[in-house]
Amino acid sequence: MRKFLAIAILCATAGLASAAEPIALRDMGSFHIGGRVVEITGKPVKEVVFTPGGVPAKVDPNGNYQVEQMYVQYFLPQNKKGKLPLLLWHGGGLTAVTYETKPDGQPGWLNYFIRAGWDTYISDAMERGRSGWSSTFKGEAIELPFGDPWERFRIGPIGSWNDDNAKRATFPGAQFPIDAYPQFMKQGVPRWVTTDEEIIKAYIALVDKICPCIVLVHSQSGTFGYRVLEARPDKVKALVAIEPTLAGDKNKIASVKGTPILTIIGDNAKDHPRWKNIRQHSVGYSEAFKAAGGDFTLVDLPDAGLKGNSHLMMMDKNSDQIAAMIQKWLTDKGFTN
Amino acid sequence: MRKFLAIAILCATAGLASAAEPIALRDMGSFHIGGRVVEITGKPVKEVVFTPGGVPAKVDPNGNYQVEQMYVQYFLPQNKKGKLPLLLWHGGGLTAVTYETKPDGQPGWLNYFIRAGWDTYISDAMERGRSGWSSTFKGEAIELPFGDPWERFRIGPIGSWNDDNAKRATFPGAQFPIDAYPQFMKQGVPRWVTTDEEIIKAYIALVDKICPCIVLVHSQSGTFGYRVLEARPDKVKALVAIEPTLAGDKNKIASVKGTPILTIIGDNAKDHPRWKNIRQHSVGYSEAFKAAGGDFTLVDLPDAGLKGNSHLMMMDKNSDQIAAMIQKWLTDKGFTN
Repeated sequence: MRKFLAIAILCATAGLASAAEPIALRDMGSFHIGGRVVEITGKPVKEVVFTPGGVPAKVDPNGNYQVEQMYVQYFLPQNKKGKLPLLLWHGGGLTAVTYETKPDGQPGWLNYFIRAGWDTYISDAMERGRSGWSSTFKGEAIELPFGDPWERFRIGPIGSWNDDNAKRATFPGAQFPIDAYPQFMKQGVPRWVTTDEEIIKAYIALVDKICPCIVLVHSQSGTFGYRVLEARPDKVKALVAIEPTLAGDKNKIASVKGTPILTIIGDNAKDHPRWKNIRQHSVGYSEAFKAAGGDFTLVDLPDAGLKGNSHLMMMDKNSDQIAAMIQKWLTDKGFTN
Repeated sequence: MRKFLAIAILCATAGLASAAEPIALRDMGSFHIGGRVVEITGKPVKEVVFTPGGVPAKVDPNGNYQVEQMYVQYFLPQNKKGKLPLLLWHGGGLTAVTYETKPDGQPGWLNYFIRAGWDTYISDAMERGRSGWSSTFKGEAIELPFGDPWERFRIGPIGSWNDDNAKRATFPGAQFPIDAYPQFMKQGVPRWVTTDEEIIKAYIALVDKICPCIVLVHSQSGTFGYRVLEARPDKVKALVAIEPTLAGDKNKIASVKGTPILTIIGDNAKDHPRWKNIRQHSVGYSEAFKAAGGDFTLVDLPDAGLKGNSHLMMMDKNSDQIAAMIQKWLTDKGFTN
């Protein structure tokens, strides 16, 4: 595993375009995909003051509404090296900003993979960011308290959060840029807990439009990545799962085992009261996947020589080393020219 | 005015990088700016089922929350020709997607101005898109019924909307790509009507970080553009207002008259029951601005030879011609190298 990493780091410093070179794009753009028009009936007419101090206007909330679409943004490099498009899907309560500039201002994985020559698609999951949201969703949206991700995403151990910055502890050698924690919290958006099926529908619509492709998922979107792989095993040609909250359905391995899978898990997860269970989903699935003849690589970063990585490894200080590891794996699997 | 347009169209076809050439960027990235951490107290603990079929978890909504930040994305062309950064602000119920790929799939003003050599910043107004939103906002969010913008944004005359696509009328020679109307409706996001001050605060934080600059506004953000100009007349060096809903404060012209202003209004506005009043804000302000010695250009597109443009002129079929007109004006004012 150390050898794997050493080669990956070599690749990061040798084969790829340097961050100082311009990014040359054949094209860049965006679109919304999926969704439907629904009719709302039986709601009372409201009085709304649109301009502060203005006269109230009657607003009838009944009628047809566009809902459940997903926003997608794409960047197509001039010097294309990836054989297939690369789709980056973010985790819960976040948007595609996950892969853009990191909270500490350094370039994220979006720029890394564009520079590496991948046609790269980022998207805001249905309900979040530029996808918009709708009052037709069931239940209330959840918002994360300011300190919540600190422990839950393993920047510090359980009990380490403190409203006083000076009294906050991290795991030893934490790679998350802790001065940028407030900046990370600005990336959060409210999320519902009732919309998984609609989110998956929109991802499938995207895959049907863009793929065959490679899908990279993180955290909550791990679930979505596996569900979409199971729905479209002929279109998802490789799956890179960064600390997925769940793995696939063991009963469906026969139909998806032709797709190689790379799962990467950060530090301080194996013995963590919560993360050891989350990690176990991937461990158990990987064993069944390999037993069925599938190609599954599970990397615990500390075993590969990378220490201190959080759940947000694409924002960690050493994120380029992890991107290089992914790039190396994709190259080994034959997905680059 | 026809001469102005003829030169603008020449400029569009001669001086600028062609859409077939690659887009070369020194850098691209994103950040969130502004906002604050607020404490929520006194709310009951809720039970939330995070995974369908799972065990409910207790969620305490009390605590500190990050709110009111704004998302900004930037593209810095290799062949920089604009002397100042160009900031594109969108209208109500929308996001920066307004300036990206048009609903008909053609390139929008973002790509146009990057290709023209401007360091270009697009942003989702506080509360919308990747800026996130917060349950701390007052009142309810408003969503637009599917047919609403058809008449309100002057694609068709009042009374022309029909749920049956075949029975829908447009203004004669309408430039809006009507087959792409459903795609446009996917770009919409809910908006509040109580958050103007917080939106303006975030825009001022952006201007304080990035400017001196040129600000281009549309519709609702016309109000924000004028308010920010009045707050930072030394930083907003030019204002391009596309069908702004309001104009500036006539009592504050003395302090902002050093900033040249270009306002562009589409077709079918002058005699429109609603738009004639909206247009009059700009007409009245422009007269006072010029009387005070300021530099104000107000273009009614049909008087300049461009017919059929809607309120969404950056998405209209002839959007490049209007961008060329803006480019010509900025060049005339000395903002390009």
